[in-house]
Amino acid sequence: MTASRKLAGMGLALPQMAEPVGAYVPAVRAGSLVFTSGQLPLSHGELIARGKVGRDVSITEAQAAARQCVLNALAAVAYICGSLDKIRRIVRVNCFVNSATGFTDQAMVANGASELLQELFGQAGRHTRCALGSTELPLDSPVEIDIIAECE
Amino acid sequence: MTASRKLAGMGLALPQMAEPVGAYVPAVRAGSLVFTSGQLPLSHGELIARGKVGRDVSITEAQAAARQCVLNALAAVAYICGSLDKIRRIVRVNCFVNSATGFTDQAMVANGASELLQELFGQAGRHTRCALGSTELPLDSPVEIDIIAECE
Amino acid sequence: MTASRKLAGMGLALPQMAEPVGAYVPAVRAGSLVFTSGQLPLSHGELIARGKVGRDVSITEAQAAARQCVLNALAAVAYICGSLDKIRRIVRVNCFVNSATGFTDQAMVANGASELLQELFGQAGRHTRCALGSTELPLDSPVEIDIIAECE
Repeated sequence: MTASRKLAGMGLALPQMAEPVGAYVPAVRAGSLVFTSGQLPLSHGELIARGKVGRDVSITEAQAAARQCVLNALAAVAYICGSLDKIRRIVRVNCFVNSATGFTDQAMVANGASELLQELFGQAGRHTRCALGSTELPLDSPVEIDIIAECE
Repeated sequence: MTASRKLAGMGLALPQMAEPVGAYVPAVRAGSLVFTSGQLPLSHGELIARGKVGRDVSITEAQAAARQCVLNALAAVAYICGSLDKIRRIVRVNCFVNSATGFTDQAMVANGASELLQELFGQAGRHTRCALGSTELPLDSPVEIDIIAECE
Repeated sequence: MTASRKLAGMGLALPQMAEPVGAYVPAVRAGSLVFTSGQLPLSHGELIARGKVGRDVSITEAQAAARQCVLNALAAVAYICGSLDKIRRIVRVNCFVNSATGFTDQAMVANGASELLQELFGQAGRHTRCALGSTELPLDSPVEIDIIAECE
């Protein structure tokens, strides 16, 4: 079953890509690698959570935010490649977690992203990952995620 | 008009690359991709600003620092590729902002980098970007930027 | 002399790779590039240091932790490529340092990683590097390092 069918089967859809504004773009292809910009958990133009994980935002909420970042990143890859189903491999996920003092469960937050990718892409979704804490993120987002994918 | 002419037309010049010292280097080429090391806003060996953005350093000063980082990064790419004009595409900019508590305008700081790249390279300068907050940076620098470029 | 012989000559050995668990993996190959996941200074399943550099962990201890991260990253690369000696070039090292307030010697910590790579690989070990401060890291690790290597 293709990734796009699995996504639909999960009741999910890729968000519509906004026309790129400003001096940067959602994704760039270089050879077979597609790099995405850092994605915030925006849905219909609004952050679905805000603040520091471990203080303002629970791990469960942060995992949902990580999934939203992944959907936005996949939309950016699909925008460049033509379809989600052109993805051969998810190579890398960087997950920066806006962390309250003493919060050290960045890996649990990043699992929200990793598990969605494995559900969608199976073996091809098994990626390398960095889970990191950040003191502040743009717009007070709880999480920011970027992806490198290998495409046909 | 080439990027090197545009740079001159803006009254700017690439800084001279120092001979690499120590166990790391300013840039490495792998296939058509050139990765730069994280660049600080050094000019003639001195940081042009120091401290946390949103407390010690204004957004305008941080944007100028981001531009200096980009000039240093482009010098590193040109050192490997022979010239600024061998750059086919700016693929990625990572911008880490030394952020005061509550500072969430990392994207505005990163615009200093992104806008310079678009001015110099036009469409080829439209890159993916991560703008992130960092609690501390080397030498108390307000910003650290690295670039991935695709070269001829 | 090969990198694997040099490692043995230094009295060091690559740690055994644990079978990948969960939805991410230690390393992924894309073309000639091998990306590793962010590595913590784990040895036999335990962090060799814990806490913030500049408060709980000295620079010397953090450099040792950085070396352990590098050994773990090299084990991940060797797991994918078959051997340490298939590495043609270390392209990139990202070093995130769990930094106490006011700690700005991230570059000194990262030297622990960079110097080991140069000892092992000589010219081929001279990499690009980002040394960055992080407010919190997974498991309260003092350092997290990932590598991109170019392999045969």
